[in-house]
Amino acid sequence: MNVSAVAGLPEIQPGADLARLIADATSLRDGDVVVVAQKVVSKAEGRIVRLADVEPSDRARAIAAGGDARRVEVILGESARIVRLRPPLVISQTRHGFVCASAGVDASNAPGPDTLVLLPVDPDASAAALRGRLRELTSRNVAIIVSDSFGRAWRHGTTDVAIGSAGLAPLLDLGGRRDRAGYELHATVIAVADEIAGAAQLVMGKLDGIPVAVVRGLDVAGEGTAADLVMPQERDLFR
Amino acid sequence: MNVSAVAGLPEIQPGADLARLIADATSLRDGDVVVVAQKVVSKAEGRIVRLADVEPSDRARAIAAGGDARRVEVILGESARIVRLRPPLVISQTRHGFVCASAGVDASNAPGPDTLVLLPVDPDASAAALRGRLRELTSRNVAIIVSDSFGRAWRHGTTDVAIGSAGLAPLLDLGGRRDRAGYELHATVIAVADEIAGAAQLVMGKLDGIPVAVVRGLDVAGEGTAADLVMPQERDLFR
Repeated sequence: MNVSAVAGLPEIQPGADLARLIADATSLRDGDVVVVAQKVVSKAEGRIVRLADVEPSDRARAIAAGGDARRVEVILGESARIVRLRPPLVISQTRHGFVCASAGVDASNAPGPDTLVLLPVDPDASAAALRGRLRELTSRNVAIIVSDSFGRAWRHGTTDVAIGSAGLAPLLDLGGRRDRAGYELHATVIAVADEIAGAAQLVMGKLDGIPVAVVRGLDVAGEGTAADLVMPQERDLFR
Repeated sequence: MNVSAVAGLPEIQPGADLARLIADATSLRDGDVVVVAQKVVSKAEGRIVRLADVEPSDRARAIAAGGDARRVEVILGESARIVRLRPPLVISQTRHGFVCASAGVDASNAPGPDTLVLLPVDPDASAAALRGRLRELTSRNVAIIVSDSFGRAWRHGTTDVAIGSAGLAPLLDLGGRRDRAGYELHATVIAVADEIAGAAQLVMGKLDGIPVAVVRGLDVAGEGTAADLVMPQERDLFR
């Protein structure tokens, strides 16, 4: 497996043809997995909020604990459920089902000091659109992962995971034993899409402005999307 | 970054010189990260329990819910704290601080049908010993990660993480803002050792009997061990 960063992309503006920028910056092969950082997908899709346009609620003011209540208001708006609250830290579940800090709302790498970048509305659809457009432009059959950095319970530091995908099987089931209720007794389902996202982060992470990497040499073609990586509520032991 | 599986290792027996087997099977370079699956480290260290030698307690029988209470007894013995219990599924915190299913006790890939493999007593020490021995044998300065597959809260499937390491900085701190209590406001500390373990899993996972991979092309040399990846209790929001 080879993982390489794609250098030379410009700052992404709303409406940008991200697939064309990627196709211009690198030479793709059939079977490549193109990992694209969520921040540029969101920027291209215009998922940007100006703080000046946000009116914080009383609840947001209380949580903000003296910080910017407008930012908290945006986070609450992106949250389906608050998982942990240690003001001003908010860990919540997004409407997509992701559990992450600040509902994925990101001030770093935002277009300006007074803007926030939100997660894509439907990251799997974002991935599918990028994949289709790349095929149109290059005739190559690639897979796409939209990645973001998530914290983990019990472990220090973030790892990149797949919040959107197209053209690959996100889970590899090695066929382990299950109990009568269907719960796994052994760890036999591997979240390959998350591992690919993490691998891509290793070449993107240190240098700002490298939001795309290409993973070559894996055979991960298959059905499914990154939504499959969200633990179904009825099997979630940590809800 | 290039990630390649190391093929050709024999079945590992207690007392095996794992470093020699790795050195014989592949050509290492300075700066390589050698990722070794926990199961072979544990086997070489003799961390094997025969079920016939285990006398289950009443508590183990209750949790086993009709399954093998001797296996549950071994899991309880490896656990410092039970985190979630849905019999016969046990998620616990090990003495190392890892939160994982079955306290890392593994029946798959065990030497026989009636044996279990336990986590190394001190995986960082295992990694350091492997690193020292590899330097002795090859004169190469490599880093070592001992990896295992852990489930995650809220996400389906396992990813490989670093349970032991030597010769690399497991965390990359990008220097983000913190609140007054020291909690991160933004995701700025990257668990690179876990991402490397996951990347290695992608080339080891599909084929049984490939417990070693070499990651080349990263610059991760530095201080620290995989113990740094365990969230300190006072900062653990999910305890």
